[in-house]
Amino acid sequence: MRVALDVMGADHGCGVVIAGAKQALQANKKISELFLVGQESQIRSAMAQIHFTDPRVKVVHASEVLTMEDKPVVGLRKKKDCSILRAVELVRQGAAEALVSPGNTGGVVAASTIKLRPLPGVDRPGIATVIPAAQNEFVLLDAGANVECKPMHLLHYAIMGSVYSQEILGYESPRVGLLSIGTEEIKGNELTLDAFQLCKKIDLNFIGNVEGHDLFANRVDVVVCDGFVGNVVLKTCESLVTGLFEWLKRELTKTPVRKAGAYLAREAFRTIKRRMDPDAYGGAPLLGLNGNVMIAHGSARERAVMNAIRLAGEAIQNHINRIITEKVAAANERLAGQNMPLTSSAVA
Amino acid sequence: MRVALDVMGADHGCGVVIAGAKQALQANKKISELFLVGQESQIRSAMAQIHFTDPRVKVVHASEVLTMEDKPVVGLRKKKDCSILRAVELVRQGAAEALVSPGNTGGVVAASTIKLRPLPGVDRPGIATVIPAAQNEFVLLDAGANVECKPMHLLHYAIMGSVYSQEILGYESPRVGLLSIGTEEIKGNELTLDAFQLCKKIDLNFIGNVEGHDLFANRVDVVVCDGFVGNVVLKTCESLVTGLFEWLKRELTKTPVRKAGAYLAREAFRTIKRRMDPDAYGGAPLLGLNGNVMIAHGSARERAVMNAIRLAGEAIQNHINRIITEKVAAANERLAGQNMPLTSSAVA
Repeated sequence: MRVALDVMGADHGCGVVIAGAKQALQANKKISELFLVGQESQIRSAMAQIHFTDPRVKVVHASEVLTMEDKPVVGLRKKKDCSILRAVELVRQGAAEALVSPGNTGGVVAASTIKLRPLPGVDRPGIATVIPAAQNEFVLLDAGANVECKPMHLLHYAIMGSVYSQEILGYESPRVGLLSIGTEEIKGNELTLDAFQLCKKIDLNFIGNVEGHDLFANRVDVVVCDGFVGNVVLKTCESLVTGLFEWLKRELTKTPVRKAGAYLAREAFRTIKRRMDPDAYGGAPLLGLNGNVMIAHGSARERAVMNAIRLAGEAIQNHINRIITEKVAAANERLAGQNMPLTSSAVA
Repeated sequence: MRVALDVMGADHGCGVVIAGAKQALQANKKISELFLVGQESQIRSAMAQIHFTDPRVKVVHASEVLTMEDKPVVGLRKKKDCSILRAVELVRQGAAEALVSPGNTGGVVAASTIKLRPLPGVDRPGIATVIPAAQNEFVLLDAGANVECKPMHLLHYAIMGSVYSQEILGYESPRVGLLSIGTEEIKGNELTLDAFQLCKKIDLNFIGNVEGHDLFANRVDVVVCDGFVGNVVLKTCESLVTGLFEWLKRELTKTPVRKAGAYLAREAFRTIKRRMDPDAYGGAPLLGLNGNVMIAHGSARERAVMNAIRLAGEAIQNHINRIITEKVAAANERLAGQNMPLTSSAVA
């Protein structure tokens, strides 16, 4: 496996990303080449500092960095030699099979959409985030690549999320739900009402609308929504979990008796924290492109980077893009043969 | 204070709602009349069962019930003598100053919008839900009345939420944020980008965009969004909190040692549970109408109904509709004097 890692543009500097790369190479014998893309002098110095001398590493110089403050499209136009573009280019040329980047998310989406192009039949890529719950883990998509969606985009997200859940997470027949404001078919906004009509016509374990209430109750494995809603939901959940744990910690340390109790029960808290740990995934795939793109958290630490690289490897091995392409083609064909009763002209 | 209570259409039957009414009258001397609206024989029998004989009660018969399965507008057209319409009618005529209903939410929104009409200058009412966090409680609106919003609707929600936070929750200068996918002014979808331009021009403590990350971190007191996003966020939060507590309980009861620890620390859990208890509010006001409308949970129990009635009383006393009308008029006037640079023709 050959992976391109954009080491620039993350919150904690390139040293942390490169240390994650070192761990990934140690853990994963199947990686044959790892391109570290960014400012060469910084990369060399960070490598020297941690005695990172693996022969599988290739350093690819890029003189510029797309920062978190840059507007994606405008920034990419100005910074032609930025690390994101250089790393995407390696995938486009076939030198690398996957890209991992903890940089500006909008920049990664724009650069890889422009350079790699969507898969045949797909209009827009979507970010698929895996969210752990007590009894299952569900894929939420789109988590922010595409904020103004058409019904067909949601249909394709349903297919892509289902393939990801099946091939990567191992769910046999993932339950796919459309995130809405009521479970009845008539509940929703224009976008979801039309998407519902599309989803129920194709070969998919489509369970209809799901509500916020269903997400953490083991009722759905793939949650489909537009990128605005998905991004808000994802960040709200992170905020709520963090807030609750901090609050619990404050309450548990208020008196010596509570502290003693918390100490005795510490393994219970640890189990939950371990499972909710965002670094366990470290990255979310941008699905629907010719190439494998993994978006890591901007705040990713070593372990998160290592896990994002591992996930990129799994996507390569499982050929999910080939499966997505086949399923999208089958769905598009089936829909083309029907007169879709859409309430608006909202199909792409 | 004179309150109309729609006792039909809730999940647990009218007996529970009427028992909540009894508690409300016992707790609240300021209520001079409480109309119980619904099927008279059922009401009389439920009252007899709990020895509920308060002279302030007036029973108002309605022969039909709009159920949770009824489509709001179609259902209201068919069931002219349903309890929701009868109860709204009491408010319209001035017999009651407020309506409380645990029935079909869409039905309550439709019936009260049609009969009571929006306040001058307001286009659409919005449901304002109070969500408790560790260090503050924030108002989220709209939580589901209006799923296809225009920018002006969000502007009015910002004003209404701010007034509610100030007058009912006691926040001196509530921080009002627009729920979006990034804090920068350029982040969002067409709706929020336009609403941002409107909000920043009026007299409001507008702090700009907020993300999901900000909600439970005491950074915002009024969270403004369309009814689709608000409904999804609200229900997701409820699902996550419920799921986490159930999970924690399972983990804490797995071994005798953990159980002992949980027992010692029990007050910590109780403090949090008490504060997150949805029954503490019991209802969410539908703001922006000529009249006070309180939407109670369909699954409301006695205490939730009692608290919803208490909240309705507070809204009456604080004359929030008068204040909302003044502030909306001032905002509309200020905006009318400007050439708004909207990116779309999306103003109502």
